[in-house]
Amino acid sequence: MSRSLTSIADLSDDDISQLLELSRIFLEVNQREIPKVPALRGKTVATLFFENSTRTRLSFELAATRLSADVLTFTLTTSSVSKGESLRDTAETIESLGADLIVMRHFSSGSVQLVSSWLEIPLVNAGDGAHEHPTQALLDAYAIMEHFNTGKRLDGISVAIVGDVLHSRVARSNVQLLSRLGAQVTLVGPPALIPLDLSLWPARATNSLEDVLSESDVIYMLRVQSERFTESLIPSMSEFSRLFSLTAERLERTRKEAVVMHPGPIIRGVEIAAEAADSSRSLIRTQVTTGVGVRMAVLYWLLGANQGRLESIW
Amino acid sequence: MSRSLTSIADLSDDDISQLLELSRIFLEVNQREIPKVPALRGKTVATLFFENSTRTRLSFELAATRLSADVLTFTLTTSSVSKGESLRDTAETIESLGADLIVMRHFSSGSVQLVSSWLEIPLVNAGDGAHEHPTQALLDAYAIMEHFNTGKRLDGISVAIVGDVLHSRVARSNVQLLSRLGAQVTLVGPPALIPLDLSLWPARATNSLEDVLSESDVIYMLRVQSERFTESLIPSMSEFSRLFSLTAERLERTRKEAVVMHPGPIIRGVEIAAEAADSSRSLIRTQVTTGVGVRMAVLYWLLGANQGRLESIW
Amino acid sequence: MSRSLTSIADLSDDDISQLLELSRIFLEVNQREIPKVPALRGKTVATLFFENSTRTRLSFELAATRLSADVLTFTLTTSSVSKGESLRDTAETIESLGADLIVMRHFSSGSVQLVSSWLEIPLVNAGDGAHEHPTQALLDAYAIMEHFNTGKRLDGISVAIVGDVLHSRVARSNVQLLSRLGAQVTLVGPPALIPLDLSLWPARATNSLEDVLSESDVIYMLRVQSERFTESLIPSMSEFSRLFSLTAERLERTRKEAVVMHPGPIIRGVEIAAEAADSSRSLIRTQVTTGVGVRMAVLYWLLGANQGRLESIW
Repeated sequence: MSRSLTSIADLSDDDISQLLELSRIFLEVNQREIPKVPALRGKTVATLFFENSTRTRLSFELAATRLSADVLTFTLTTSSVSKGESLRDTAETIESLGADLIVMRHFSSGSVQLVSSWLEIPLVNAGDGAHEHPTQALLDAYAIMEHFNTGKRLDGISVAIVGDVLHSRVARSNVQLLSRLGAQVTLVGPPALIPLDLSLWPARATNSLEDVLSESDVIYMLRVQSERFTESLIPSMSEFSRLFSLTAERLERTRKEAVVMHPGPIIRGVEIAAEAADSSRSLIRTQVTTGVGVRMAVLYWLLGANQGRLESIW
Repeated sequence: MSRSLTSIADLSDDDISQLLELSRIFLEVNQREIPKVPALRGKTVATLFFENSTRTRLSFELAATRLSADVLTFTLTTSSVSKGESLRDTAETIESLGADLIVMRHFSSGSVQLVSSWLEIPLVNAGDGAHEHPTQALLDAYAIMEHFNTGKRLDGISVAIVGDVLHSRVARSNVQLLSRLGAQVTLVGPPALIPLDLSLWPARATNSLEDVLSESDVIYMLRVQSERFTESLIPSMSEFSRLFSLTAERLERTRKEAVVMHPGPIIRGVEIAAEAADSSRSLIRTQVTTGVGVRMAVLYWLLGANQGRLESIW
Repeated sequence: MSRSLTSIADLSDDDISQLLELSRIFLEVNQREIPKVPALRGKTVATLFFENSTRTRLSFELAATRLSADVLTFTLTTSSVSKGESLRDTAETIESLGADLIVMRHFSSGSVQLVSSWLEIPLVNAGDGAHEHPTQALLDAYAIMEHFNTGKRLDGISVAIVGDVLHSRVARSNVQLLSRLGAQVTLVGPPALIPLDLSLWPARATNSLEDVLSESDVIYMLRVQSERFTESLIPSMSEFSRLFSLTAERLERTRKEAVVMHPGPIIRGVEIAAEAADSSRSLIRTQVTTGVGVRMAVLYWLLGANQGRLESIW
C-alpha cells in the first residue's frame, strides 16, 4: 500500500511545507509559454467520481496533463453502484488496467480511506461525503498565504467559515489545515449546522455573522445545499440568506483589506451576492487557478518525488 | 478581451481569405502520414457544450489535438444551468483553470457574444441558438470552392439552401459568408420557415424547390427539427417531405454537375433520400473532413498566428 | 475495405500466433518505467460504444494511448439511434473526421460486420449483441497460456465455461479460440441457457457444475444478466445461484492447481462468491491487466504492422 492523501491528518508539518513549496513551483510552471513538464510522463492518473463535479475533476485532469501523465476518466452514477462490493471491484479493475494513482470522489465519508486499504497504488481524496477534501484546503491555504504575503504560516490571520459547516468536507479540511498553520478560525452558521462538540474542531463558533464581519481577514462562504432545507435543518432559504448571505451591504462592513473566498460553484443571490463574488476583494477565481498548481504538486509528490524525477520539473 | 469568432460579420474580407488559406495548409497536414503539428503545444482548448453535439465537439477536439493543444471537455445539460449567472461562473472558472480558448455551443442566440464580453480569452461560436455557426459556413465555403475549383471566390456559383431557413444558424452564417464571396444564394422553404424580411439576408427566396432544382450548382439541405411540427409552423412531416425533401427523382432533375450538401446529422427519408445522400454528387462526407482542417485554421488563427508560431506548422 | 477483427473466425492460425506474440511484447512494454511506444503516433483510434461499458472502452483507449495514438470517444445511448440509417451515418462521419480505426460495441449481433462493409478503415468488435467479443477471447487465451506455461498452445487444458452460455458473446468467442488452440471446453448451465445444437460449438455440454468441478483446469464463470430471469429462461436468481454459483465450498472441490476466471464485472454472491473472486486462484485481475497488452497488439496489428512500424516498438 502506497502513501495516499485522504485527509489533512495524513500530512505531517513537513509534508505540508513540501506540498506548498511544490505548489509554488508548479504555479510558476503554469505561467510559462508552454506550461508543461515531463515529470510524470508514462504515468496514468485515473479519476473515479461517484458524484458529478466537472470542475474538480477537470482541475485534477488538467494537472495530470500538465505533468505529461495520461488520464483515465471513470464517471459513475450511484445507480451503477448499488452493491457494496462493486466499489472494490471497480477500484481493483482500475489498478489492474495500469493506473498509477486514483483521484476519487464519493458520496460516503471514509470511502477513500477504505479503497486505499484494498489497493497498492496511492489515492487522492477529491471529496468523500461530509468527511474531507484535502486538496481544497491546501489550495485555500496557499491562496491566503500568497494574498497576505505571510510566508509559510498563517499566524495572525483570522478566517470566518460561514454556512453549513456541519455537513461540509471543505470546512472540515480547512479548519484542520488553517489552524495548524496558525490561523484563527471561527465557524459561523445557524445552530443546527454548526458542530455541537467542538473538541475535534480547532475553532471557535458563533451563530452571528454580524459578530465576525469586522474582525475577519477572510470571509469564507460555503455552498448552501438545497437538500438541507427539505431536511428541516434550517427553516427556509430566504431566512438562511437573510442571516448568513454575504450581501453587498455586509461586504461594506468588513475590514477594507479582508477577502472573500468560496470553494465553488457559487449560487449568486443565495449565499453570496454578485457584488461580493465579482468584487476586487474576491479570491474566488484565484482559488480556481491555484487549484491546478496545488493538484500538480499533490500528484507529483505522491508519484514522482520519491523516484528521482524532481529534476525533470525544470 | 481577445478577438473571438462569434459571427461571420466579425470577419473582414482579409480575415476570411487568411482563414481559407490556413485551412488549405491544415488540410494538407491532415493528409500526412503523421497529421500533427506542434503549433499549439502547451495551449489548452476547452469545449463548453450546452447542447449535445458529439460530432461538432469531436471535430473541434480533434482539430485541437492535431495542433498539439490539450483539451478540456465541459458538457452540460440545461438542467445544470437553471440560473442565469452560472453561465458566467462556468465560463470564468474555465478561464481561471487555464484554458486559452473556449469553443462554445449554447441554445440561446447571442450567448457566445455575451460570454466573450466577460472573458479575456477568445471564444469560438460552435452554434448559438438560431443565430450563427460560423465554422460551418467556413467549411462549406471551402468545400464548394475546392469542388468547383473557383479559387478564392464563389462568383458565378448558385446555392439553394432548402428547409427550415428561419431557425437555422447554419443558414444564417452560410448566407452571409457565401454571398460575400460572390455566390448567389436562394432560400427555399414553406412560408412559415422563410424570413419575412429579407433585408438582412443577402439572398432571394422562394417557396418552390422545383423552381431552383435545375438552376443551382449546390443544393444545400438543412436539418428538419421535429419540434417545428409540434409548434404548428408546418402542417406535417409527410407534407414537408413531399414538398421539400431531396428525393432520388428530384436529384435527377438537377444539373449534372450540381452537388448535394448537408450540415449533418442527416435523417434519411425525411429531408434527403438515401440515393441523394450516398450519391457521388454528395459532398456530405467531404464537409466533415474539411471541417477538421478549417477548425484547425480557426484555432490556430486565434491562438497562434499572432505569436510567431506560424513557422511551427511546417 | 481494410482488414477488421469482427470474430475469431476472421483469424488464421498464423494470425492468432502473431497476435499472441505481439501481446507478449506489449505486456513487456507495459512493465517499463515509461510504458509507451511511438508505434501509432499520428493515428486516431475512435471508440464507438452503443452499450455502456466503461472498463472495456477504457482498456482500448489506454491501449491506444500507450501506442501514442490519439483517441476519439463516441458514446451513444440507444435513444439517440432510433433510426436504422444513423448507424451508417455515424460510422461514415467518424471515418470522414479522420479516424484510422473504430473500436465498436453494439447491442445487435452482426452490427460490426455490417459497419465494416460500409467503411474503408478497420473495425475491432468490442462486443456485438450475443455474437462475439474476440479481444476478450484473445486475452483469456493469453492469460491461460501464461499461467499454465503451455507455450503457444492450450493442449491438455480443460476449461469449464459456466452460466448463461447461450446469450454470451464471451462464451462464443472463447469456445472458438480455446478449442482451436487445443483446449477441451465444457459448457455448463441450465438447459435453457445452453445451445441446443452444439454442431457450431466445438465443446461438450452438461447441466451439472458438480460434474466438471474436479476435472477442470479453468473454471470460467460468465456474468449473469438479470434480464434473463424476467424472460423466464431460468426460474429465479436464487435457484440459479444454488446450482451454478462458484461458492467457497465448490472452490474447495476443484483441483488444487485450477484457476478461476471471469470477464467482469463480477457480481459477488450471485455467480461467484467473494472467497473465489479474491482467492489466490483467481485470474480475474490478471485478465484485466492482460487485456491492455492484447488490445495494444490488436490495434498495432491492424494499423501499424503492415506499414513498417514494427521497429518503432523498441
